[in-house]
Amino acid sequence: MHILIIGAAGMIGRKLTERLLNDGGLNGKPIGKMTLIDIVAPPAPVGFGGSVEAVAADISAPGESDRAIRERPDIIFHLAAVVSGEAEADFEKGYRINLGGTHNLLESIRKADRDYHPKLIFASSGAVFGAPFGATIADDFHLTPRTSYGTQKAICELLLADYTRRGFVDAVGIRLPTICVRPGKPNAAASGFFSGIIREPLAGQEAILPVPETVTHTHASPRSAVGFLIHAASLNREQLGSNVSLTVPGINCTVGEQIAALKRIAGARVAARIRYEPDERIQRIVGVKPRVEAKRARELGFTVENHFDEIILAHIEDELGGKFEG
Amino acid sequence: MHILIIGAAGMIGRKLTERLLNDGGLNGKPIGKMTLIDIVAPPAPVGFGGSVEAVAADISAPGESDRAIRERPDIIFHLAAVVSGEAEADFEKGYRINLGGTHNLLESIRKADRDYHPKLIFASSGAVFGAPFGATIADDFHLTPRTSYGTQKAICELLLADYTRRGFVDAVGIRLPTICVRPGKPNAAASGFFSGIIREPLAGQEAILPVPETVTHTHASPRSAVGFLIHAASLNREQLGSNVSLTVPGINCTVGEQIAALKRIAGARVAARIRYEPDERIQRIVGVKPRVEAKRARELGFTVENHFDEIILAHIEDELGGKFEG
Repeated sequence: MHILIIGAAGMIGRKLTERLLNDGGLNGKPIGKMTLIDIVAPPAPVGFGGSVEAVAADISAPGESDRAIRERPDIIFHLAAVVSGEAEADFEKGYRINLGGTHNLLESIRKADRDYHPKLIFASSGAVFGAPFGATIADDFHLTPRTSYGTQKAICELLLADYTRRGFVDAVGIRLPTICVRPGKPNAAASGFFSGIIREPLAGQEAILPVPETVTHTHASPRSAVGFLIHAASLNREQLGSNVSLTVPGINCTVGEQIAALKRIAGARVAARIRYEPDERIQRIVGVKPRVEAKRARELGFTVENHFDEIILAHIEDELGGKFEG
Repeated sequence: MHILIIGAAGMIGRKLTERLLNDGGLNGKPIGKMTLIDIVAPPAPVGFGGSVEAVAADISAPGESDRAIRERPDIIFHLAAVVSGEAEADFEKGYRINLGGTHNLLESIRKADRDYHPKLIFASSGAVFGAPFGATIADDFHLTPRTSYGTQKAICELLLADYTRRGFVDAVGIRLPTICVRPGKPNAAASGFFSGIIREPLAGQEAILPVPETVTHTHASPRSAVGFLIHAASLNREQLGSNVSLTVPGINCTVGEQIAALKRIAGARVAARIRYEPDERIQRIVGVKPRVEAKRARELGFTVENHFDEIILAHIEDELGGKFEG
């Protein structure tokens, strides 16, 4: 089996690559080849017996999506995107990459050989939903994005559904919660601070909190995010039906609850490294979102952590070798 | 005031042009210029004191949408579209015209002078909604198109909202019910028979009914459709809020009720000119749709006929000079 990951150099892309290579297979079939694409060449993984190709390419550029599927990968994970903050700041770039790139990929698949209908797993986002909300966000909440990023993801979901209905591709879109705790440097996502306020204090550094502690958000660990993608690849058309995109579960909690969890696990000294510095732009993009129900995804077997404490523990285990700066 | 109508040669476009010229103004301002665009040059209206330009252009072609707004029209009615049946039969053409054309227009507006933010009234469709439905379609029903046409309209709605939110345009999308009774020749719309079964018998001709009499659908007369467009142009940003597209009201009835109304108005002899000839392709595209609630549109002042009988009477009055073939 040949697996293509677009956006393989990103945090989730790298972790997905690692997981697939560890597993050695997907859906019970061995992986013979992996193609890893990103705008910078993804790191070539070590210790994989099969063939690996790491390519620097931008699938929104003419011809690049054709080239990406030249060898007809069986399963495509499409994770490449400009994050929310950047898509809001650079309107053209957001549409070019987040909409144009995905549309190009779908067009390349459609125009390929008549019998080529790969499985496509697309990383969508809860940003497809916007206020006003009720008490929770149900699976059938209407698409009301309030950001350009959310608009681009919502449009991609509509394209996935139509291209799937027409039989060109076998797609599934999963609306990921905010991934927390993101390792490494902060990225340009407006939601980056949700990770920062856990990651930096555990590393002995100060973190900026740009929103009030009452802000509620939905999170999943990087390992859960990878789990969502792997599980999505196992679903068949009958299970998905016409609505090929779905909201996956997450841990819904306030920033205050995040900080309380950090205190419980790492102590008050660590939690005291968080400094409140309000930023209206970030508050506006992040918004106020209620709990996502994700009933359908749970029924389809998607799983996530049970409590925010587990998300912090996953970070300490996966990224910090079990230790932190007390 | 300068008004641009894109898709001006179509049935609704011609009726809208006529209505605007009759009214002589819009939103209390006199119309100084009308630009009429369609893939074939729209008929030049007679008896209008202002300036009229009728242009053959395809706004999905490079440069054409820039050209269309060159003189910075104050109000743009964008009605141009490939109909549902054709968008389903010709995938590429549907996306090129229905999505590409609208996206081009929005891009031309965005890239125009910094202070150019025209009002844009977009003809969307109830096809943005798809089964499974509940008892009615509420205003906040999720976007679940089950056709390529519906997908294209839903994507345009998302674009309208984002371009409006960003301040590039002042858009409103109205989800039109099926327009009935369409005068003239049948078009390629899968829903064309809803008009045909009234129009042809009244003209002394046989009509084909491709779906069972139990099929329910939502209708509005051409004059109501024009009324929706005119009313939409009068709404301001505060009235519309973030969700710039809305479902306008219609008369919901079964095909059987349509036929009963025809019998009441024109007699059993006329209604007997309908012949049932099932067509699965049409049944699949038309689907089964419950009543649209259109609560928000009614609150915003959109009005429609009260009963299907009035729709037939409007046709006899507006198109047949008050007479029909008994």
